[in-house]
Amino acid sequence: MRSLHHPHIEEVALPDVLHALSDPVRLQIVRELADHSEQPCSAVEASVSKSTLSHHFKVLREAGITHTRANGTHRLVSLRSEELERRFPGLLASVLDATRTESEHAA
Amino acid sequence: MRSLHHPHIEEVALPDVLHALSDPVRLQIVRELADHSEQPCSAVEASVSKSTLSHHFKVLREAGITHTRANGTHRLVSLRSEELERRFPGLLASVLDATRTESEHAA
Repeated sequence: MRSLHHPHIEEVALPDVLHALSDPVRLQIVRELADHSEQPCSAVEASVSKSTLSHHFKVLREAGITHTRANGTHRLVSLRSEELERRFPGLLASVLDATRTESEHAA
Repeated sequence: MRSLHHPHIEEVALPDVLHALSDPVRLQIVRELADHSEQPCSAVEASVSKSTLSHHFKVLREAGITHTRANGTHRLVSLRSEELERRFPGLLASVLDATRTESEHAA
């Protein structure tokens, strides 16, 4: 597996981060990842096809939100929480809080 | 001028808010509005055509981020800061902080 590109945190642009987070499935992924240090892509639950899910993981990685690494035939994905907190303080935390607010409204 | 639709704050969806904020021109508009209580659409400085700017104002209004009202032939626009803070605590503030971080990086 070729190595995957991850933008340097200083090059991560706010509009790209917000765009990556503006999709319900990607928000669901980010929320799941927030509860784990690192997990296999295949373990993330989403109501979309495998190829669509791969696309969402790619958008999140390219926007600087997640880190993906190969481990044998698996891909392990994690949130770049600490780096994002340094770059855009409070942003990811407020988005995660907001996803919880939305779930409560929907419930 | 017909009255403009504004979504009720409880109906405002997180992905829509994040999408509306994921554009550099709209971020610039929001940042300008954050420094004023209310201002004419025409007073907002942006490096795009008038019709493009109108489109951006519409996206922000429909996402629940801004309020627009007619005053004679003018349109006055303001941020729905307090309502958004109630709905998604810390979100708008962290995005505004992040726009300042980006400007410093660009400077």
